[in-house]
Amino acid sequence: MNPRCRLAIHGGAGVIDRASLSPAREAEFRGALARIAGDAWHALMHGASALDVVEQAVCDLEDFPLFNAGHGAVLNAEGLAEMDAAIMDGHARRAGAVAGVLSPKHPVSLARAVMEQSEHVFLVGPEADRFAQLCAVPRMPPSYFITPERAEQQRQAAALGRITLDHDALYNQGALRDKTGTVGAVARDLDGHLAAATSTGGMTNKRPGRVGDSPVIGAGTFADDDSVAVSATGHGEYFIRAVLAHDIHARMTYGRQPLAEASREALAKVRALGGSGGLIAVDRDGELALPYNTEGMYRAWVGADGAVRVAIYAN
Amino acid sequence: MNPRCRLAIHGGAGVIDRASLSPAREAEFRGALARIAGDAWHALMHGASALDVVEQAVCDLEDFPLFNAGHGAVLNAEGLAEMDAAIMDGHARRAGAVAGVLSPKHPVSLARAVMEQSEHVFLVGPEADRFAQLCAVPRMPPSYFITPERAEQQRQAAALGRITLDHDALYNQGALRDKTGTVGAVARDLDGHLAAATSTGGMTNKRPGRVGDSPVIGAGTFADDDSVAVSATGHGEYFIRAVLAHDIHARMTYGRQPLAEASREALAKVRALGGSGGLIAVDRDGELALPYNTEGMYRAWVGADGAVRVAIYAN
Repeated sequence: MNPRCRLAIHGGAGVIDRASLSPAREAEFRGALARIAGDAWHALMHGASALDVVEQAVCDLEDFPLFNAGHGAVLNAEGLAEMDAAIMDGHARRAGAVAGVLSPKHPVSLARAVMEQSEHVFLVGPEADRFAQLCAVPRMPPSYFITPERAEQQRQAAALGRITLDHDALYNQGALRDKTGTVGAVARDLDGHLAAATSTGGMTNKRPGRVGDSPVIGAGTFADDDSVAVSATGHGEYFIRAVLAHDIHARMTYGRQPLAEASREALAKVRALGGSGGLIAVDRDGELALPYNTEGMYRAWVGADGAVRVAIYAN
Repeated sequence: MNPRCRLAIHGGAGVIDRASLSPAREAEFRGALARIAGDAWHALMHGASALDVVEQAVCDLEDFPLFNAGHGAVLNAEGLAEMDAAIMDGHARRAGAVAGVLSPKHPVSLARAVMEQSEHVFLVGPEADRFAQLCAVPRMPPSYFITPERAEQQRQAAALGRITLDHDALYNQGALRDKTGTVGAVARDLDGHLAAATSTGGMTNKRPGRVGDSPVIGAGTFADDDSVAVSATGHGEYFIRAVLAHDIHARMTYGRQPLAEASREALAKVRALGGSGGLIAVDRDGELALPYNTEGMYRAWVGADGAVRVAIYAN
């Protein structure tokens, strides 16, 4: 048992119909979440920084093909995985973000390179891919990211002329029933530092160049050692307009709301604007919150007792 | 006199050395600010919406070649004007933003088209330019945006191997002494609605693909009828990390701070992170604030008395 370390990860929130998610597929999701959370917890307990841990956890989530990030990201209207990611260090509020990148094997690691190896916070488009090359962040060809299921999903969405979130109800049918969304991680380390990271392929069949909330500091990703670290998932446009992650920080900092209330009310604001989704958060006192206003959210967390917990639905 | 309408515009904050700004050049700046604010005020008093007024004011600021936006934007490391803009409607918090665009004559109008004619909030890169074409937002060739002064500025910065803000002290020398930054506008209309818009060419000699705070909703641009409309200018990386514009909203909403205190303290947070700049804001009660922590900020505003006021320095 450790009084300081905390961890939460997510693999997206959305319409996850229990009846349509096969036991085998559910076990696959739960296994991946447990393994990734377990590895991250192990690292935290051995003194890894929150920043290193959220980066590595998101890399692992990016590698898992059923989550919408990195390998297995959803495809845009041109059939390409066009990815966004961000990372933020609660210590001194350093941040890095990328959007519309096509090549980094781990977009979250490119976001970290932007934070640490550029004078900038936010790089987008082809030049962000070029920056990956400059920084020797591993790159892969477009085919690496594309799984057969994602290609089929995009073809169906294109045929229907729809832009859809990965977890859109439309895709809760047939072969597409159990797709998931954005991935993210938040952690508090032995030194009490907080960090957050988020990575996504965005929306199936999206217009190329569309940027959601994941790489927008304050919307989908935020961390401040004095308050909270947050990673969000959902209909990004509404999370941007709600400035969701910073709203949680602000409710805690200026409104003196506890984390549970702050995250619930911030998410209610997203809902009031018309959006759905969820988030994971850890605050400076080690409280965890994983609220969502969808049918489910792929998630795992570790509290003070050191037990790795995994959940998809409300119970 | 009108009890509701309010207006503020800015043409950037930075090191504006009084001694080095020639009287003729200063008169040119003051004249442009007075004319643009006067036109915007006239429209507001005749019933134009805050949204229409901030868009038009920013278009006018984009057209003025001495401000860093639209025609006369600073040039990136490839010698191109690569522009970012955002607009937000305080009514229902609708928002649109673009980054890394090369072609729209008025980037702020493309941001509005994203808000009104797409399902998205934020479009970046070549696809945002393509969207301009789709929406028939007027486009111009790269040469339209490039002024001889900006080309010289970029060549000097490239020779020095520096990325600089338009108002960086380095450029407060010789031929480059009186350059300015980002532009923006905030307004409160006859119906009490608020809106904010911001537009910029970013940093001289910047890495292509770099995105500053201007198009980041919550950082450089934010509006909510229930609290405040904000447009910021300065070292964007720090404004992103501070989530400056939403921080002002949050201090007012959750901390019950008056606008003057909220905007001063939010800017102090930017300073604490290492950044400098300024902002303009109007709140739901019609209070105006135009703080900055630099030597000057090009600005104009109209309060309840209907008088257009213009200032560059502190006094």
